[in-house]
Amino acid sequence: MMKANKTTITVVKVGGAVVEDATALSRLLTDFAAIPGRKILVHGGGRRATKVAEALGIKTTMVGGRRITDAAMLEVVTMVYGGLVNKNIVAGLQAIGVNAIGLTGADANIIRAHKRPVKDGVDYGFVGDVDAADGQMIARLVESGVTPVVAPLTHDGEGHILNTNADTIAKTVACAVARDYEVTLVYAFEKRGVLSNPDDDNSVIPTITRADFDRYVADGVIAGGMIPKVENALAAIDEGVARVVITQADAIDGQQGTIIR
Amino acid sequence: MMKANKTTITVVKVGGAVVEDATALSRLLTDFAAIPGRKILVHGGGRRATKVAEALGIKTTMVGGRRITDAAMLEVVTMVYGGLVNKNIVAGLQAIGVNAIGLTGADANIIRAHKRPVKDGVDYGFVGDVDAADGQMIARLVESGVTPVVAPLTHDGEGHILNTNADTIAKTVACAVARDYEVTLVYAFEKRGVLSNPDDDNSVIPTITRADFDRYVADGVIAGGMIPKVENALAAIDEGVARVVITQADAIDGQQGTIIR
Repeated sequence: MMKANKTTITVVKVGGAVVEDATALSRLLTDFAAIPGRKILVHGGGRRATKVAEALGIKTTMVGGRRITDAAMLEVVTMVYGGLVNKNIVAGLQAIGVNAIGLTGADANIIRAHKRPVKDGVDYGFVGDVDAADGQMIARLVESGVTPVVAPLTHDGEGHILNTNADTIAKTVACAVARDYEVTLVYAFEKRGVLSNPDDDNSVIPTITRADFDRYVADGVIAGGMIPKVENALAAIDEGVARVVITQADAIDGQQGTIIR
Repeated sequence: MMKANKTTITVVKVGGAVVEDATALSRLLTDFAAIPGRKILVHGGGRRATKVAEALGIKTTMVGGRRITDAAMLEVVTMVYGGLVNKNIVAGLQAIGVNAIGLTGADANIIRAHKRPVKDGVDYGFVGDVDAADGQMIARLVESGVTPVVAPLTHDGEGHILNTNADTIAKTVACAVARDYEVTLVYAFEKRGVLSNPDDDNSVIPTITRADFDRYVADGVIAGGMIPKVENALAAIDEGVARVVITQADAIDGQQGTIIR
């Protein structure tokens, strides 16, 4: 049963393309700062990691869109996600009045994961599948007046950092705080929302429920890579998130895009 | 006037040589975990930064023991101090039951600095001289049950990360929390303490007060690089720190070494 009048919180996830472009990042941070009330930012950084790896002579291998993370690549993503990208976002938010605090899943033990097992012959290496998140600790930090900025890294509780998908981190954080807050989870991606016609940027579907989704999939309106994205959003709803907004990086106030509820 | 029965806190600073050697680091973290009560760890990482810079083809230039930090080197130290070294320490502490949280001065705005001005023709680049630290925020984090692990980075409040000496960070943090706690500041370095005979490792001076210091300097017993180190410790005492211990990395419990008070 949902408690009436919960305090609202907005969890915004932005991908690598935005955080690695100085102009786009600056705009995003300004838009994020303007979101009223409590909020959390989750960021990617994959493109930057690929560049740093290249400069270090480390080859990037992707399987199904996921980075194979051997020991050398783990050092790169720990440096880039946890250091370079995270701290620059934190400093950028501090400059515009947001008291940001950068976190990985290891910090304050907020997200625990295990190393993904080898499956179908693919060893992703030091990639983490999430086991548990400490929503109370996240809430305690938020209530102490800071704004978490979460990097896509977790830990296994045995001393190892693990590389973890930023969309998953965002969903995990959103679900973890859903007991204490009315959560809006905003996924910023390259399109204006879920489109009924992939060739028409103006064909944004305003709202999708589980029943709508089943119908859209049956009709072939939602297809391909959008299926797991919307599935993931519906799973967040099932775990207590009030609404998920799939939108563009320049519309993270959640007033545009597709609302999943 | 010192309030009676303040809660104690221990601030430990360890340098790069320890944090970059897996065996030494593991021992240090175990020793740190064993320190009773509230505590804060401050770390360096310069040797690792030099190695990563070298691998990226970026030349390291030191002036008077301090790193010249141009834009490229700033990215390296942000990656290495804020990411690689900090997050591995945090994950390592989590594995032995310490609920660590990694912080730079930008995180939760705990340490604000300004870019060091060019002086005597030396431009250190993005190096920060500390302006202010938020002892209340640090105390709030500690009281919420987490153990801060602080990287030698600050920010200028205008969006820039700045490279800042780890000894300075440790002193800044120790002084900032001295209003709320009885603070022991432990500096771990390569010697067993301040030696009365630099050639005899067993000649550790047990206690040094300001009056002792003046006498030791006049007599030539304390000389060279030890003068600024002890000066720095005495300055911490003047700013409210209860005691400073200068000791080896394998004795961070503060039971050995030289006590400055």
